[in-house]
Amino acid sequence: MRPSGRAPDQLRELTIEPGFTKHAEGSCLISFGDTRVLVTASVEERLPPWLRGKGSGWVTAEYGMLPRSTHTRGNREAARGKQSGRTQEIQRLIGRSLRAVVDLQKLGERQITVDCDVIQADGGTRTASISGAWVAMRMAVDKLMQAGAIGEDPIETQVAAVSCGIYDGTPVLDLDYVEDSNAGSDGNFVLTGDGKIVEAQISAEGERFDDEGLLRLMRLAKMGCTEIFEAQRKASAS
Amino acid sequence: MRPSGRAPDQLRELTIEPGFTKHAEGSCLISFGDTRVLVTASVEERLPPWLRGKGSGWVTAEYGMLPRSTHTRGNREAARGKQSGRTQEIQRLIGRSLRAVVDLQKLGERQITVDCDVIQADGGTRTASISGAWVAMRMAVDKLMQAGAIGEDPIETQVAAVSCGIYDGTPVLDLDYVEDSNAGSDGNFVLTGDGKIVEAQISAEGERFDDEGLLRLMRLAKMGCTEIFEAQRKASAS
Amino acid sequence: MRPSGRAPDQLRELTIEPGFTKHAEGSCLISFGDTRVLVTASVEERLPPWLRGKGSGWVTAEYGMLPRSTHTRGNREAARGKQSGRTQEIQRLIGRSLRAVVDLQKLGERQITVDCDVIQADGGTRTASISGAWVAMRMAVDKLMQAGAIGEDPIETQVAAVSCGIYDGTPVLDLDYVEDSNAGSDGNFVLTGDGKIVEAQISAEGERFDDEGLLRLMRLAKMGCTEIFEAQRKASAS
Amino acid sequence: MRPSGRAPDQLRELTIEPGFTKHAEGSCLISFGDTRVLVTASVEERLPPWLRGKGSGWVTAEYGMLPRSTHTRGNREAARGKQSGRTQEIQRLIGRSLRAVVDLQKLGERQITVDCDVIQADGGTRTASISGAWVAMRMAVDKLMQAGAIGEDPIETQVAAVSCGIYDGTPVLDLDYVEDSNAGSDGNFVLTGDGKIVEAQISAEGERFDDEGLLRLMRLAKMGCTEIFEAQRKASAS
Amino acid sequence: MRPSGRAPDQLRELTIEPGFTKHAEGSCLISFGDTRVLVTASVEERLPPWLRGKGSGWVTAEYGMLPRSTHTRGNREAARGKQSGRTQEIQRLIGRSLRAVVDLQKLGERQITVDCDVIQADGGTRTASISGAWVAMRMAVDKLMQAGAIGEDPIETQVAAVSCGIYDGTPVLDLDYVEDSNAGSDGNFVLTGDGKIVEAQISAEGERFDDEGLLRLMRLAKMGCTEIFEAQRKASAS
Amino acid sequence: MRPSGRAPDQLRELTIEPGFTKHAEGSCLISFGDTRVLVTASVEERLPPWLRGKGSGWVTAEYGMLPRSTHTRGNREAARGKQSGRTQEIQRLIGRSLRAVVDLQKLGERQITVDCDVIQADGGTRTASISGAWVAMRMAVDKLMQAGAIGEDPIETQVAAVSCGIYDGTPVLDLDYVEDSNAGSDGNFVLTGDGKIVEAQISAEGERFDDEGLLRLMRLAKMGCTEIFEAQRKASAS
Repeated sequence: MRPSGRAPDQLRELTIEPGFTKHAEGSCLISFGDTRVLVTASVEERLPPWLRGKGSGWVTAEYGMLPRSTHTRGNREAARGKQSGRTQEIQRLIGRSLRAVVDLQKLGERQITVDCDVIQADGGTRTASISGAWVAMRMAVDKLMQAGAIGEDPIETQVAAVSCGIYDGTPVLDLDYVEDSNAGSDGNFVLTGDGKIVEAQISAEGERFDDEGLLRLMRLAKMGCTEIFEAQRKASAS
Repeated sequence: MRPSGRAPDQLRELTIEPGFTKHAEGSCLISFGDTRVLVTASVEERLPPWLRGKGSGWVTAEYGMLPRSTHTRGNREAARGKQSGRTQEIQRLIGRSLRAVVDLQKLGERQITVDCDVIQADGGTRTASISGAWVAMRMAVDKLMQAGAIGEDPIETQVAAVSCGIYDGTPVLDLDYVEDSNAGSDGNFVLTGDGKIVEAQISAEGERFDDEGLLRLMRLAKMGCTEIFEAQRKASAS
Repeated sequence: MRPSGRAPDQLRELTIEPGFTKHAEGSCLISFGDTRVLVTASVEERLPPWLRGKGSGWVTAEYGMLPRSTHTRGNREAARGKQSGRTQEIQRLIGRSLRAVVDLQKLGERQITVDCDVIQADGGTRTASISGAWVAMRMAVDKLMQAGAIGEDPIETQVAAVSCGIYDGTPVLDLDYVEDSNAGSDGNFVLTGDGKIVEAQISAEGERFDDEGLLRLMRLAKMGCTEIFEAQRKASAS
Repeated sequence: MRPSGRAPDQLRELTIEPGFTKHAEGSCLISFGDTRVLVTASVEERLPPWLRGKGSGWVTAEYGMLPRSTHTRGNREAARGKQSGRTQEIQRLIGRSLRAVVDLQKLGERQITVDCDVIQADGGTRTASISGAWVAMRMAVDKLMQAGAIGEDPIETQVAAVSCGIYDGTPVLDLDYVEDSNAGSDGNFVLTGDGKIVEAQISAEGERFDDEGLLRLMRLAKMGCTEIFEAQRKASAS
Repeated sequence: MRPSGRAPDQLRELTIEPGFTKHAEGSCLISFGDTRVLVTASVEERLPPWLRGKGSGWVTAEYGMLPRSTHTRGNREAARGKQSGRTQEIQRLIGRSLRAVVDLQKLGERQITVDCDVIQADGGTRTASISGAWVAMRMAVDKLMQAGAIGEDPIETQVAAVSCGIYDGTPVLDLDYVEDSNAGSDGNFVLTGDGKIVEAQISAEGERFDDEGLLRLMRLAKMGCTEIFEAQRKASAS
Repeated sequence: MRPSGRAPDQLRELTIEPGFTKHAEGSCLISFGDTRVLVTASVEERLPPWLRGKGSGWVTAEYGMLPRSTHTRGNREAARGKQSGRTQEIQRLIGRSLRAVVDLQKLGERQITVDCDVIQADGGTRTASISGAWVAMRMAVDKLMQAGAIGEDPIETQVAAVSCGIYDGTPVLDLDYVEDSNAGSDGNFVLTGDGKIVEAQISAEGERFDDEGLLRLMRLAKMGCTEIFEAQRKASAS
């Protein structure tokens, strides 16, 4: 029995509010239950030095948690003067996930920076960030295409992410904070709209798992992402 | 004529949404037109080393802007590895403003940290932060009093802030970004519920001003704060 | 009665020693009683990247306190690896104050950096810095004009600063350290030679003040600056 | 055909030289072909503050690359003043992998810090680090047990890691630098001596993969780790 | 012929102004020609953690150059966020030099921090710092002895420093900036009042030297330090 | 009697293993007894900005100690976020020593960076670094000459370094850690193949020394370097 009363393969309530801020070329507020992430996509007509003049664009991401997005207040990374290893790990993952579905040549010599800022955390902030990031990027690219800045759509397919884990012996989908803190092992899966895997990170600090466990988590992740893809399409079409 | 069509002494639409996040002891989303700041107040039963064992509490504040809260994307301070001088100046101002209306002895040996994070910026983010900070702090202190942790109310009166400036020769209240960028001189006024001044910072990078100008700005600030006090009371009572 | 025995509207003994160091284009050692600040103005024929090619110059300032300029030794900011929020606030204020009286177009594409280093502190280091900064800048600009590098004088008028505060219920001019530590509220006023206000920052951490208090402080500041202007003229003419 | 001429399921030549340095409680130089990592395990009779007094120990890891361990010289992280996101990601992974096979209660209130420094890099430095780290930790724990400091062996089983990827359409084991740079997708697998998975991170920046691909990589990883376990046992028994 | 017209064994004009600042327990402004260094000695009744409870004191030093102490303005180290290698090298040398003549047991469990801040630089700032540092330390220790805090004098003898170098083929004493920039090799010698050597650092970036050269520089250094010792005694006795 | 049983003028066992790593243009592992330093020389066809376009090259060095190269584990400088003063002092010394024997004009517009990383420390790591650095640089320059990138040999002579000190009243050569920790005074001497001195740094934290002591240390250093020069020639010729 999950603490929230959800079925093992049940996502938390998922909402995506597109256009949450007015300045960004694309943005949304994505919520998985009490986890809420504000995502913005910013288009800049310049590239990092090592990419200039190669006819190709770039997509990158940054991630942060507001100090009191969590149960107890955490240090503000800007005040501490550096980003934690966890923060860097997550923002690298978001960037790789987005680039996996973008043809950087078609994007042209410009950069899209996606900022994922966690307003409220209850588990699964990195996967919510990825799922929201695709929506914000989609909106920003649509704007570029409408303006005629890009000819052919550089986004090849959707990308979404969800966590799964083994809680109290049972594989469950979309762990909230209570489950995440007690799961023997858990994983984050990044999947694409065409049924492929982009990233899979499975980790067992407590209890080690086997092949069978891995496959069952993978299957749950596919079910979860199918729902997320649907919500992404609705949000970005509105 | 103001770009927004407002009268010289007219605030932007002001809304305060209390309880915006669930973990913080007090929180609100405060909006002055398109300027939106998420404020949380966190209570911690510990003090910075230099205050321990003196029978007194502490109130402090931190401030940040999400990278794409602005018209064009700014650097993430956590990634740059330091807070700008502007950020530090603002968070020091918010902290002083709050402490000016709190009896730290009555607060007891605990610390309230107020985080002001700008979700969307359109001028006046520091004054919106102060006005929202009082609401979040009020809610956190109410919770402490209801729990019996504090006997006597340590908050002596309200505190709110607003900007005023001379735009196109006319003193105007609550400058938005367009006005702020073009004002000859402008100021931020922090006033208390009992009609006193806590901080007044008036600055003229373009056009210098005189005593008379200062007094006219002050008068506008008082009008503006009267309205903000009313909104604070409604928000924190709900 | 002031601890120093001064009248409420009496400045401390003010001396300005121009040309205190030989390398800088302009320099002085300014003293208000026991507060002593070494100010240098350095001319560089280059601009920060964001200003290049716009036909305009720049004036900026940096501020520091020697570790043992104070009653007890403070940390060396270079060793700590960062400037405090207070330091940054002050150096931004000095820079704004100077720019308020300079026509940057007439300065041409060059930068003047004014360094204010506190040799000995006894209250009022930021206002002494501003008052001395004008002298060092004036000397540096005179040198540029004598060399024919600048045609028309870019300095429009003088700028000076002084602190005022309410000490033991009485408004007093030019607070020393003992007064500053005990003042209910105090302010720093930056005024120009043509009788205008450039910056006014009034703050009440202890006791809040009202309009009348603000005006009385302002009046004292004007009296104080009149004397400082006189001393600046003598120093820079020598 | 692999560039090195190896069979798809063939490891590079693997050597582990135990006791490579004399000061550390445990150490080895581990080589997978041209990839060479110097690993030391240091025992300290103290704990990080957040773990003190809980009757439990800690195992952690740090990772670094010598500036010229790579084809072209990279910046020295100590000179740049910060560790890259990649470095932090790797050292967190090494630490989690080791802790997955250690009973921290049995270790007692002490810390083992494993340092993995890459002397020469040719792909697979993080997996070589993990495989060598177990050997160094095993030696250090043996020393503690021989000294009677620890009663019961806190190491539950072996842990080793290897990379696999899809190179030119074929799943291959233990990628070298040339393969790694060209692989469509690749993964790092951390497995335990009892046949379980501790971490699996599979990533596709170029080409996305499916369930079947994931399972084939997993199978290769198991084969590889079986050989590494054998080499670890020999090295740590010597 | 030296650019300054001095004889090869002639010091620049040397002045030591004791008590230059009022807060420090000891202080002086020391000048060797146009090189001017402000030195303060601060006594603190506390020790760094690694020295506590050992019945012994500590003497340490910090060094800095004001940004415009030099011909062209240098970066402010506090603004850059770190001290240069040169700065650290110099402050370590000053600290070692002072400790070489102090009996730390007799000093008792307290720390003397000597700050050497270069007001104006014209070569030889590190040796001027050491020579001035002894005076400031002497004054601070005298104050401690007069107050009865220290029984027996912990300062065993004087310490002073001077530079020598081979300029245009001739060994010369006390190089100024022009000589220093052109010397084939030069050295800094730290000598004690009892005729011993504490530190000798001789370096040849341009032209290499031999034993004979080293001895001739040493002989000049002894002559120079004899004069400096005399000036130190006068200054600290006043 | 030395703790190691060596004669006063006896070096520790010296070995130089050239070509220790495969990527660097030149490299060696140099050992003086238990002190082992891995040295690599990297050639880059670019220069620091301040040297570009002057027809001259540059030679520089970086130094580091692996965290557990020492008896007890030290902090990783990359994790601490800065290099210690000691590290910077040493790497500046290595760079100066190498440049003293290189004609930078003949090197052409390229940079050689020598990295010295201490694998195991037992005293004398800075002098071992210098002695090994010459070998690695020699190999890198040979490669450039063989490739025809350089016409005339820019290396004018050899450079090597050794420490000497007064241990228990006797001048001894090549101090190991135990001797170094107990020596009254010690020095590092950098000598060239043509019998000249490049750097001499003698320091007495405990016991002060005189001219005679200095000369005796110098004589030992010459003897030691003669042996090191021989080993360098053999290693770089292989």
